[in-house]
Amino acid sequence: MNTPNIPLEPVASFDYVIFGATGDLTMRKLLPALYRRFAEGQVPGDARIVGTARSPLDDASYRERVRHALREHLRAEEVVDTTLNQFLGLVHYVSLNGAESSGNWAGLKSLLESGTGDGRVRVFYLATAPALYGDIARNVAEKGLRSDTSRIVLEKPIGTDLATARKVNEGVGQYFPENSIYRIDHYLGKEAVQNIIALRFANPMLERMWDSESIEYVQVTAAETVGLEGRGGYYDGSGALRDMIQNHLLQVLTVVAMERPSSLDADALRDEKVRVLKALKPLDPHNLHANVARGQYVQGTTGGKRVPAYREELPGEVPSQTETFVALKAEIDTPRWRGVPFYLRSGKRMPQKLTEVVVQFRGGEPGLFGEARPGSRLVIRVQPDESVTLPLFVKHPGNGFGLEEVDALSPLGRPERVRYRDSYEGLMLDAVKGSPALFVRKDETEAAWQWVTPILDGWRARAEAPDAYEAGTWGPESARELLRRSGHQWIEDAAA
Amino acid sequence: MNTPNIPLEPVASFDYVIFGATGDLTMRKLLPALYRRFAEGQVPGDARIVGTARSPLDDASYRERVRHALREHLRAEEVVDTTLNQFLGLVHYVSLNGAESSGNWAGLKSLLESGTGDGRVRVFYLATAPALYGDIARNVAEKGLRSDTSRIVLEKPIGTDLATARKVNEGVGQYFPENSIYRIDHYLGKEAVQNIIALRFANPMLERMWDSESIEYVQVTAAETVGLEGRGGYYDGSGALRDMIQNHLLQVLTVVAMERPSSLDADALRDEKVRVLKALKPLDPHNLHANVARGQYVQGTTGGKRVPAYREELPGEVPSQTETFVALKAEIDTPRWRGVPFYLRSGKRMPQKLTEVVVQFRGGEPGLFGEARPGSRLVIRVQPDESVTLPLFVKHPGNGFGLEEVDALSPLGRPERVRYRDSYEGLMLDAVKGSPALFVRKDETEAAWQWVTPILDGWRARAEAPDAYEAGTWGPESARELLRRSGHQWIEDAAA
Repeated sequence: MNTPNIPLEPVASFDYVIFGATGDLTMRKLLPALYRRFAEGQVPGDARIVGTARSPLDDASYRERVRHALREHLRAEEVVDTTLNQFLGLVHYVSLNGAESSGNWAGLKSLLESGTGDGRVRVFYLATAPALYGDIARNVAEKGLRSDTSRIVLEKPIGTDLATARKVNEGVGQYFPENSIYRIDHYLGKEAVQNIIALRFANPMLERMWDSESIEYVQVTAAETVGLEGRGGYYDGSGALRDMIQNHLLQVLTVVAMERPSSLDADALRDEKVRVLKALKPLDPHNLHANVARGQYVQGTTGGKRVPAYREELPGEVPSQTETFVALKAEIDTPRWRGVPFYLRSGKRMPQKLTEVVVQFRGGEPGLFGEARPGSRLVIRVQPDESVTLPLFVKHPGNGFGLEEVDALSPLGRPERVRYRDSYEGLMLDAVKGSPALFVRKDETEAAWQWVTPILDGWRARAEAPDAYEAGTWGPESARELLRRSGHQWIEDAAA
Repeated sequence: MNTPNIPLEPVASFDYVIFGATGDLTMRKLLPALYRRFAEGQVPGDARIVGTARSPLDDASYRERVRHALREHLRAEEVVDTTLNQFLGLVHYVSLNGAESSGNWAGLKSLLESGTGDGRVRVFYLATAPALYGDIARNVAEKGLRSDTSRIVLEKPIGTDLATARKVNEGVGQYFPENSIYRIDHYLGKEAVQNIIALRFANPMLERMWDSESIEYVQVTAAETVGLEGRGGYYDGSGALRDMIQNHLLQVLTVVAMERPSSLDADALRDEKVRVLKALKPLDPHNLHANVARGQYVQGTTGGKRVPAYREELPGEVPSQTETFVALKAEIDTPRWRGVPFYLRSGKRMPQKLTEVVVQFRGGEPGLFGEARPGSRLVIRVQPDESVTLPLFVKHPGNGFGLEEVDALSPLGRPERVRYRDSYEGLMLDAVKGSPALFVRKDETEAAWQWVTPILDGWRARAEAPDAYEAGTWGPESARELLRRSGHQWIEDAAA
């Protein structure tokens, strides 16, 4: 019954131009992802990876940096010297500030046009500050680097609210048609998130249960144990709502909630996701308190260590009001979901690193098996491991018909046969292949901002401080209160 | 969420009178079952187990036989000398032919009335030839052994067709009211079979899938590897249809197919089971060939050994026409099941010992995930191990949305905490406790015979020989042909 392991066919040859090539994301995620795909034979031997950044490096010195980064960020057994050297042979560097037109664009152009470059897929990956996206796109266009098969990949955040998101989209959109713009949300690259689609629509027994009649609520949690990690400047201007909810968690919500698409084609899928975002009941200053909890961590203990407060971690220890935690109750105003809360939360300095979706089914009336049966929970775990746990009530062994709940754990596919890929691996090659299904369309980004922006506005208008929570806890009391009002509990409270 | 291990409370004190106390069933199953319940503290220290049979034994010599049998049929680690000696202290013997009124009934009576015997639950377990049941019941009554809390347990077979079953039921029914008659079918004592009820009615996602809209067919297999094992005389007068289908497999079918009962009370449950049996589409001589395959094994190889034909195993090697294999297509004429075949089969000298229920769900139309999706199979394994396998389609790891089917294996309860009991253990104490839910009611037995008898009549009328099949195979070609006509396959053919 099992389909055979799908062979990884090499993609057509390509040039990958990375702006921000000396940055953290490039070194920690993008280059390791390309290396892994290369090591598994999916990257052709004549592909080119061209880093650009301001630093005055040449190919050789950039390659040494890359070598160092790969050794640091790959597992030891993944780094094979001959493979690494072959991979580094694909890597080039052009010293260039993508936002300025004065750099060595001619050098980059002649590199890309050398060899068979003209006929190749060309991907521009923007791993820079988002404020530069428009300028980079313009320069790429004006310097004649676009080809017929150019794609531009944009990292989050796309803007900081609806107005700025539109500006970014318009800035890039002046030079690239929407179907060549790939907004990356690496949550969509995760097997477990993609599996929500397979689970829902390939298993009639789940598809039939997927509505307000059977589901009581949904919880989506993305919890980190870390604090600022030196991202103080960026993070303090952003906060958990912009950094996590607007993109990752709303993306997960759309996949959980969308109607069955007519196909898995990129636009059919994204049409349904947009419909969910547009059906979110608006939050505004009047109902904000009832539906959103906002927190900032103070000193506490995590992993057995005392850790400082958020404000103490900030450069200059400014009295910031940025939220490091947000929990909210979203409602989707469609026949399928009316009355089913979608609780989203994300925070730093939580007790554990955990990303998961919990679908809480309604319990049974008292009946055949005596007292009321608690509802089952389908748990889709995204981090730290990827799994699906499907609960089943069975008879307790022995006399009588006492029930017990067992977890029918389903490995996602076959981890013993297939290494789980980092989410960037699949997505970076999807951009080469021209498969935008797992990227975020312009209208999705903007619909998400449309829903999120009034929350930001409300906070600004009220100018209240976020609720304090001790580092190493699950957020402020207001987050628990938020669910209590609906008669619900966060999973870890229910389990305690 | 899990209910704690249900403690085993001692039952009230009782006297268990076994007729046929020197026989194979008593030694192999009944006494080991009582010993285990005693060792786990469920049998009170003043309970009495009274064996009766024709052999002229006394307590001491019978106890020695029992000691020997327990050492043979229990696992070594179960036999603890002190426990064994305490248990043997409960055992008594009265030499008596239960079918004759001339025996030492007075001795049995005075034993039962000694001590606190009058107030106790008294169970008469008839492990004799079924032809004697009426006579034993009459003697028990006429000799004054019935008490207010008497129960009589009847082993299968209850008759050999509808007329004889009625005769047995009437014979015993003259002396015992129906609610004190416990017809044992040890398949109903199996955790996996009882779990069908829990799975179906405690899990909405399965309950919603449990009809002809979602289920394509059901297969119930009870396969043995052994041949006659010295049961030649009895078996040759019976055959697979009477020995396995009429009782065990039809019981499993009722549990799979019944409507949701209003409660788990004995009569609510059995009312629903009877309804299934009464809704079975009748088979008659005209549609027999299309719906029933009948086989008898000839020489073959099983477990790497050459084994003789059935006829060669019979005493005197008579040219018997008894079936050692039967496969049939049953249909239940109710809205829930119309059009869903229930394929039942049972045979001796099969390739493996296996009892299982397979629920084949319908496949998906070509759609979201490309080509048509094969239907999933829920497998409820009864022997050799007890398990439930719930299949789930997940996304194949890696790019794209290829599906693969994974088995979410659900241990039934928690084998690491609770030893699986032999089915006689629970049932024998249910009789003490007065819990008849897992015993077969008169109307169930008779409804099963009502459906089975025309098959026997049809075979007799046609006087055809059963189809030969090689020992160590899955039965004759006609069994495969039976499913092929409906476009189906036996599971092992589909897997091959």
